[in-house]
Amino acid sequence: MSVRTLSVEAVSKVGAEVTIKGWVNARRNMGKIVFLDIRDRAGTIQTVGVPSQMTPESVERLKEVRLEWVLELKGAVQERGAKQKNPNSPTGAVELLIKELKVLAKAEPLPLDLEDEKIGLGIHLDYLPITLRSEKYRALFKIQAEIVRGFRDYLNAQGFTEIQAPKIVAAAAEGGADVFEVKYLKNKATLAQSPQFYKQIMVGVFERVFAVGNCFRAEQHATTRHLNEFTGLDLEFGMIEDHHDVMNLETELLRHILNHLDKTVSSELKLWSYIRPELPEKIPYFKLREVQELIKKETGVDHTNEPDLEPGEEKWLGNYVQEKHHSDFVFITHYPTAKRPMYTYPDEADPEFTKSFDLLFRGVEITSGGQRFNDYNQLVQSMKNKGLNPEDFKFYLESFQYGMPPEGGLGLGLERLTARLLGVDNVKEATLFPRDLNRIDLQLSPPEYKQ
Amino acid sequence: MSVRTLSVEAVSKVGAEVTIKGWVNARRNMGKIVFLDIRDRAGTIQTVGVPSQMTPESVERLKEVRLEWVLELKGAVQERGAKQKNPNSPTGAVELLIKELKVLAKAEPLPLDLEDEKIGLGIHLDYLPITLRSEKYRALFKIQAEIVRGFRDYLNAQGFTEIQAPKIVAAAAEGGADVFEVKYLKNKATLAQSPQFYKQIMVGVFERVFAVGNCFRAEQHATTRHLNEFTGLDLEFGMIEDHHDVMNLETELLRHILNHLDKTVSSELKLWSYIRPELPEKIPYFKLREVQELIKKETGVDHTNEPDLEPGEEKWLGNYVQEKHHSDFVFITHYPTAKRPMYTYPDEADPEFTKSFDLLFRGVEITSGGQRFNDYNQLVQSMKNKGLNPEDFKFYLESFQYGMPPEGGLGLGLERLTARLLGVDNVKEATLFPRDLNRIDLQLSPPEYKQ
Repeated sequence: MSVRTLSVEAVSKVGAEVTIKGWVNARRNMGKIVFLDIRDRAGTIQTVGVPSQMTPESVERLKEVRLEWVLELKGAVQERGAKQKNPNSPTGAVELLIKELKVLAKAEPLPLDLEDEKIGLGIHLDYLPITLRSEKYRALFKIQAEIVRGFRDYLNAQGFTEIQAPKIVAAAAEGGADVFEVKYLKNKATLAQSPQFYKQIMVGVFERVFAVGNCFRAEQHATTRHLNEFTGLDLEFGMIEDHHDVMNLETELLRHILNHLDKTVSSELKLWSYIRPELPEKIPYFKLREVQELIKKETGVDHTNEPDLEPGEEKWLGNYVQEKHHSDFVFITHYPTAKRPMYTYPDEADPEFTKSFDLLFRGVEITSGGQRFNDYNQLVQSMKNKGLNPEDFKFYLESFQYGMPPEGGLGLGLERLTARLLGVDNVKEATLFPRDLNRIDLQLSPPEYKQ
Repeated sequence: MSVRTLSVEAVSKVGAEVTIKGWVNARRNMGKIVFLDIRDRAGTIQTVGVPSQMTPESVERLKEVRLEWVLELKGAVQERGAKQKNPNSPTGAVELLIKELKVLAKAEPLPLDLEDEKIGLGIHLDYLPITLRSEKYRALFKIQAEIVRGFRDYLNAQGFTEIQAPKIVAAAAEGGADVFEVKYLKNKATLAQSPQFYKQIMVGVFERVFAVGNCFRAEQHATTRHLNEFTGLDLEFGMIEDHHDVMNLETELLRHILNHLDKTVSSELKLWSYIRPELPEKIPYFKLREVQELIKKETGVDHTNEPDLEPGEEKWLGNYVQEKHHSDFVFITHYPTAKRPMYTYPDEADPEFTKSFDLLFRGVEITSGGQRFNDYNQLVQSMKNKGLNPEDFKFYLESFQYGMPPEGGLGLGLERLTARLLGVDNVKEATLFPRDLNRIDLQLSPPEYKQ
């Protein structure tokens, strides 16, 4: 086997004979000469087939070759003529003059144009195994991988330990209609909505932990923001003063991720409507009631007794904060105790409201977080207040019985963050293999997608 | 809030007044003087309470303090007397002379001794939220986190892209009794046994991919090697010659992980029966039939027609290879085509057997892998041969219809690898929150665990 050269490595090998392997990304006939753009994991490179320069078998094979065929090409790297150079491509100064062509895999004629931006979401999702090969979607999921890497790198550097949280959890507990049920051998179990209980338990072990993993919500919503399975970026840490420590950590975490993207995927970002988010030294924060008063004053709509903001109000606030505070992010704190989970810490000064927060990014919620109860008796009482049976939480409660520091944490939705960063309207586009009400790959596809 | 000093940072702050926060790891009374070992995320430090040096409130509080209480301690770092120094602890040359003591959280008296190595597995698992706090288990899961980090670092450096694979998958497909069923809104779905299909699809997109995530097996086995939910370290890559490329990659991946552990968790490894595995330049490999012939010759047991090795035979081979080849690892290749999944590539020279492999580590299987079909027609034919309906795999098959290079990959069980590395007998001990036939945390616990 000859040593393989990656597309981008060819730039430094002008004059040498190399072997390139990859997919046919484009094919252009110029009379007898054929140009093939070859795509590999590192990029693309132009190759040129001139019959007189090739073995006879290769000439015959080249005639057959179409898009997405996988080829092994042997030939010499040559510099392009001055007018043929493409300054926008990392390999735009060179091309491979094909000598031998070997077919590694054929492809049927494509059912759609991979770079066509006008195919609808339904078709896009029906053909994900090939639509993901387009330049834009490869860029999107490279960026997503780097978001995750930036998340981990920052937290590792801050003394956090990564944990592997289970997804099969007990049937009882918090319950609710939005939980998936699993037939667990002879029993019932459910799929974890988040690693909440496990990351809290692990604060008792490692003090600072994070987890990256699938989260499951049996929501019946078919919106541009909801998924039935998403990737949660979760963290939790002890020895905090209050929820502001968690908010401050998230601010610096986001700053690290944005810097990391600049360093690793700047060219990928350019393929999307990426505008670097404005992230001030301190992200503005408001209490829910303050926001509602503001909305009442500015728009006349009185929702000052509602337990949450409506999507339209979140969008309004996003715009308001952008204009007034030059921030694409805004924290909303102090959601009502009655509406937050039983582990949420109330504000001692006003116990009807909690030391919890949501983070809105460009008008869409991407994080929920806050301080949690760390005192066993308070936590048990909170469960009772919510009509829950502490016996069902015996395992989780062990952590609090045996010494848990003041602690808090947050969960960040990877796909929502990706979508908001890149100006993607529907979060399903920023999800590798989205599951929703009507779709698991091609199964369950509803008729309206099929038109 | 005073700035916090971590236990290990105190070593360089002799003479300074600092604030330490952490759990009471040990308490020793010496007449009026009390020693507390304080544990935080970075390590432990000895603190000493001398009544004459403390505020009156702190003296009273110190009397109450017990194991696992969470404290904030202010005082001066002082060098210990020559005889009091402990060369085995990173903080063994210093101690904190307590001036002020604040209680951040109390703990009930512990139901067991955290460092007692003789408590049974059932009790250990019943009390995981606290038994995980012991020095040995904190070390174990730190090591596990670094195995995962080593896995990712190596693959990122080799041009692999991390993907987030879905866990909710279609109901039909490969099926089998060992698949968990999920009530998916109005339909049925199942939990993915591995990211197999998705990582193969993504080879068409990124050429080289990996995934770290939960895998689900509804196995009815209650053994020391089986889990119903485990962490899969999965990778898949294109442009290979055959399964040997995959085996070679795994060899270098393991080498990187072992080196990474030496660098990051050498002291944690010492707490377990860690003997650095022997990993030769090339891991020995044998065809299944060769191994069976060898066993027949050496032991007289004739299993030369069996489709797999028995656990006892794997153990025998592990010992044999250790002695003869000085390797703790051995690949077994060429499992029968009839017994491997439909995507497994057969050996052209002997199509009854496959270009697949298992990797045994110290006599236990930790990896399955191999070359896969990349040709659409061959793959469809293989499905039919196995009695499967290609229509059920339409989404997956798109990848192969539209150009897939020769490719292969593997899945590595994180918990099994951890257990074998550290000499842990039962894989459940190397699993953060193990699920088995009878256990989801405290739910489903069978009576025999409760004695």
